[in-house]
Amino acid sequence: MSFDLVIENGIVITLNKNNEIIANGAVGIKASSIAAVGKTGEVDKAGAAKVLDAKGGIIMPGFVNAHTHAAMTLFRGLADDLPLMDWLNNHIFPAEATLNRNMVYAGTMLACAEMILSGTTCFCDMYLFEDAVAQAADDAQMRAVVGEVLYDFPSPNYGPIEKGFEFTEMLLEKYKAHPRVSIAVEPHSPYLCAPAILQKSADLAQKWNAPVIIHVSETKAEVAQMLEKYGKTPVAHLADLGFLSPRVVADHCVVLTDDDINLLAKNSVKVAINPESNMKLASGTAPVKELMAAGVCVALGTDGCASNNDLDMIGEMDTAAKVHKVVTEDPTVMKAQTALELATINGARALGMESLIGSIEKGKLADIIVVDTAKPHLTPMYNPVSHLVYAARGSDVAHSVIHGRLVMENRQLLFLDVEKAMADVRQLARIIRP
Amino acid sequence: MSFDLVIENGIVITLNKNNEIIANGAVGIKASSIAAVGKTGEVDKAGAAKVLDAKGGIIMPGFVNAHTHAAMTLFRGLADDLPLMDWLNNHIFPAEATLNRNMVYAGTMLACAEMILSGTTCFCDMYLFEDAVAQAADDAQMRAVVGEVLYDFPSPNYGPIEKGFEFTEMLLEKYKAHPRVSIAVEPHSPYLCAPAILQKSADLAQKWNAPVIIHVSETKAEVAQMLEKYGKTPVAHLADLGFLSPRVVADHCVVLTDDDINLLAKNSVKVAINPESNMKLASGTAPVKELMAAGVCVALGTDGCASNNDLDMIGEMDTAAKVHKVVTEDPTVMKAQTALELATINGARALGMESLIGSIEKGKLADIIVVDTAKPHLTPMYNPVSHLVYAARGSDVAHSVIHGRLVMENRQLLFLDVEKAMADVRQLARIIRP
Repeated sequence: MSFDLVIENGIVITLNKNNEIIANGAVGIKASSIAAVGKTGEVDKAGAAKVLDAKGGIIMPGFVNAHTHAAMTLFRGLADDLPLMDWLNNHIFPAEATLNRNMVYAGTMLACAEMILSGTTCFCDMYLFEDAVAQAADDAQMRAVVGEVLYDFPSPNYGPIEKGFEFTEMLLEKYKAHPRVSIAVEPHSPYLCAPAILQKSADLAQKWNAPVIIHVSETKAEVAQMLEKYGKTPVAHLADLGFLSPRVVADHCVVLTDDDINLLAKNSVKVAINPESNMKLASGTAPVKELMAAGVCVALGTDGCASNNDLDMIGEMDTAAKVHKVVTEDPTVMKAQTALELATINGARALGMESLIGSIEKGKLADIIVVDTAKPHLTPMYNPVSHLVYAARGSDVAHSVIHGRLVMENRQLLFLDVEKAMADVRQLARIIRP
Repeated sequence: MSFDLVIENGIVITLNKNNEIIANGAVGIKASSIAAVGKTGEVDKAGAAKVLDAKGGIIMPGFVNAHTHAAMTLFRGLADDLPLMDWLNNHIFPAEATLNRNMVYAGTMLACAEMILSGTTCFCDMYLFEDAVAQAADDAQMRAVVGEVLYDFPSPNYGPIEKGFEFTEMLLEKYKAHPRVSIAVEPHSPYLCAPAILQKSADLAQKWNAPVIIHVSETKAEVAQMLEKYGKTPVAHLADLGFLSPRVVADHCVVLTDDDINLLAKNSVKVAINPESNMKLASGTAPVKELMAAGVCVALGTDGCASNNDLDMIGEMDTAAKVHKVVTEDPTVMKAQTALELATINGARALGMESLIGSIEKGKLADIIVVDTAKPHLTPMYNPVSHLVYAARGSDVAHSVIHGRLVMENRQLLFLDVEKAMADVRQLARIIRP
């Protein structure tokens, strides 16, 4: 077989079931899929349309950013270091009130540039005007799971909530056969969604076999509010509504009781943690050790750029590993290998895509990045997984392949005009903050 | 006056007493010093030997890494995610037993490459064979404060402790007039140094008016050990020995009592925190809020690459800001501006060099970096200080000037063979782990 693309001369970190690492390895890609994985030389490059030399670097699955609000690049650095309610009410909500479809498209294109440049190949998004997010992800040649945020009050996009469900169903219909973009049902949270909205969301997701994305137990204040209103924690409330299922991705999950953890595990709910955002807003850290001990699939996300303030999954792995060690006072918690799994294969699992992406295995879709390790801060090389988590930066990603297509070569984006993406957002920033 | 170097068209973050930020600013450099700071156009570039265009990026003082063990790049990623004593006794100490002068020189040259590439212009080092560290820093054209580690047991470098003091005094004499490299007296810690060594260290430092660098209260175990042995906390023990003074930099200071904080403040001791290392080893976080409230000068360091695993001060600022917010549950703790001060002017203060470096002010030495902000992850630009701390990476540093000399231009090191630095350490790594 002649391949469309061969990547060779790299350390292949497969993230397959046995966590195989292939020294001097190679990957052969045919159309959108991985057709061969092996040693350099064994993967035949004769007749390949293109051969990429990894030059001794790392060949690995692209990162899956399991929770973000991509278009919030528009508000990066707009307001920081404030108490949560001051930050939200006086800075973020007023800025968001100015949003429109074009702004969300521009913000998402910039986010796609940043994500590809730092090794992310798939992201899960929640925001307004998600038709624009889907379009931007498609135009940028990224893989994405996107969904319009649903909540109790009128949306600047769709208006009243009934229209929100119609809008979501329109997106589900429109993208049902898209190779890279898929749609999720996304009620904002138990505290911003009445029980009827939550139940309708779960029903719609079941009908379409779609993921359900929801913020859950991000802050102590939110949990206190739910306890006061419903007499239950957010997780218990969702459980009692019949909302919890294997298709649910619960974002944040910082403030959980033991019963909450058992409920999440029992219902095979997936959790997407966002350590940098939760640290910056001083919300806390998710009980990752306990969640994983209970068998819950934990994935990793950056959250939006208003509270992080970047979309770099490599930095997020580093912080995730370190912060969970320090808060548990245990250096064996969240090992480098674990952090790497959260950022790749567990992200795929959380989004119901573990048979398609998240590892380098024959037959899976080719979402692959190459990390250049010939740099002082990645020298010497005793352990490539340690370096990825504890020393690498997003800027070390040299090449990126999504759905079999080379989208970045030597840090040049091949399907996205990065200068235009930046210029468009700079112009919008002058409107957001005159 | 015609300048030797003019840097213009940038946002100048001065870090001067008023924290002035000059939009479209410029800096004029004459010999080793800053000769002019102002608007682009006002700083006359006619006749300048060299003009650097910051292209709208950030012009700022270089970072001061207030605590590291530079040569530990040799052990980067050698062992991670282990309990502290297992990590030290079974991995780090055996590896360090193989050290010699050439290895320390090679490890430090690699560290200098990494530090310059990520914006550090000055570092404070503690290790073995510090003559080699001083030589490497000098060869790499960096500014450094270095000192041979002193402790109760024989050193692979100098042998018995008396020779350690002789060695330190030899270094003090040798570098007393060096423009960039200066020498500190560096007893390892209260738990590895008998009282007589501590007192002799303080006396020697006073004689030479040199800084004293010492690890203090890094872990709970260390404090418990000191309480058992001396019936006092490490800080109280040092205070009772008359060791504390304004020339002391106490590294880590994770486990402090209120009395400890008062003693540090009363004696004008400086503290260098190392959040990433303390997180990775699960030691805890320093009580930065309380230290700063007491008026203690707090600086920032990366610690060594065996426990971080990089020397990137930009990443360290980000983590410092976020981790102190989350552990105090207060998003207003360690604001971006504070983190930036820790990494620049406070580092200079800690090392007794605040009249020389740490800010961009006329008359100070020209240790200056330029950060390229024309990148997706630094777009848009509402607030350059926010971006530096929360979104930038070490790899965004484009140019670096140390002591008036351009040492990096467009990420090319001008006085350091980075390929050789990497090759030398790769070769040594094969000896360290055969």
